[in-house]
Amino acid sequence: MSKNNDFSDITYNRKSVRVYDQKVKISREEMLEMIQESTTAPSSVNMQPWRFVVVESEEEKAKLRPLIRFNKKQNDTSAAMVLIFGDMKCYKYGEEIYNRAVAEGKMSPEVRDEQLAAIIPHYKNFTRQEMNDVIKIDSSLVAMQFMLVARSHGYDTNPIGGFEADQLAETYGLNKDRYVPVMIVSVGKAEEAGDNSIRLEADRFTTFA
Amino acid sequence: MSKNNDFSDITYNRKSVRVYDQKVKISREEMLEMIQESTTAPSSVNMQPWRFVVVESEEEKAKLRPLIRFNKKQNDTSAAMVLIFGDMKCYKYGEEIYNRAVAEGKMSPEVRDEQLAAIIPHYKNFTRQEMNDVIKIDSSLVAMQFMLVARSHGYDTNPIGGFEADQLAETYGLNKDRYVPVMIVSVGKAEEAGDNSIRLEADRFTTFA
Repeated sequence: MSKNNDFSDITYNRKSVRVYDQKVKISREEMLEMIQESTTAPSSVNMQPWRFVVVESEEEKAKLRPLIRFNKKQNDTSAAMVLIFGDMKCYKYGEEIYNRAVAEGKMSPEVRDEQLAAIIPHYKNFTRQEMNDVIKIDSSLVAMQFMLVARSHGYDTNPIGGFEADQLAETYGLNKDRYVPVMIVSVGKAEEAGDNSIRLEADRFTTFA
Repeated sequence: MSKNNDFSDITYNRKSVRVYDQKVKISREEMLEMIQESTTAPSSVNMQPWRFVVVESEEEKAKLRPLIRFNKKQNDTSAAMVLIFGDMKCYKYGEEIYNRAVAEGKMSPEVRDEQLAAIIPHYKNFTRQEMNDVIKIDSSLVAMQFMLVARSHGYDTNPIGGFEADQLAETYGLNKDRYVPVMIVSVGKAEEAGDNSIRLEADRFTTFA
């Protein structure tokens, strides 16, 4: 599929699409490519706490259906439902990430050691609430970029927040204390046009100082 | 300034920029335009809970400086520090938003009435934790889009999470119980190249079901 590279079209014409063409599937290769492209999004101390579960089979979508409150049509027709979780133990990836930065010549071993010595204990000492906030913010950044990247691939999305959050992780074999659901994004080829919705004028909610 | 419309360049070459050209300011008109363009981002039930405070004067930046833990260079050199808050009472804008949708022919009065009757009590009944999560997720979506929109305008950004969250609202005249800080984004013309940082391979944190 040829890529769309028109920033204005991708970004300003993105709308939430509820009904997808059920004949159009997305290969695992392309899905991983879209996820990879989404992760140029930034994260706090580059810890990349986002974790993805791509629900694409009919069987697994059927398990998801009762956990979604209002957006069952998206589950029924999309190529995939992308579950985005935040990892409360994301710091377990810290050494790997910072070692890779050194291996690729983007960081000196001294800076790595200094930063890891500060970051890992800091993250381990977070309260559950503090870590919740960090992983929800970081995972939402990657979610927004994923929605735009999907459009560059010719697909559309719908971000979904209404689901049984306490059941999502375990339904897909994840420890619910560690993996906190942030958002579900349906993705596929649009069959019906997306929602038209209005936005407030920027000066209604912006002040200058 | 001519716009960049190259999605791949804007999105995949975005890096956190720490040092900006201090001679380059951003007009309030252009800043509002960038914020407006950012808000095509989606939000839960279209409640648009994001609130922006653009700190651009030397005097107000001087007040911000001690509240920022590690990124003082960005505060010192950027054209502006954009404070993004989430509004714990965002439902107060509900009627205005849904009335606008009806006025613009995007929603029938019946759908408006039905949706507001469900949404407003639901939002009012949220626990503080539940509302915290919704506004942090929604405000992060708009923050990501703002970082990309800024690049389309020829600027660069740095998302900043290390600040004295309990002091940020009141320093800028906002009620701290209502306005919860989510992120600060520095913005300006890059003077030094942004950070090079690595990303994990997508298949390290993605599973298919």
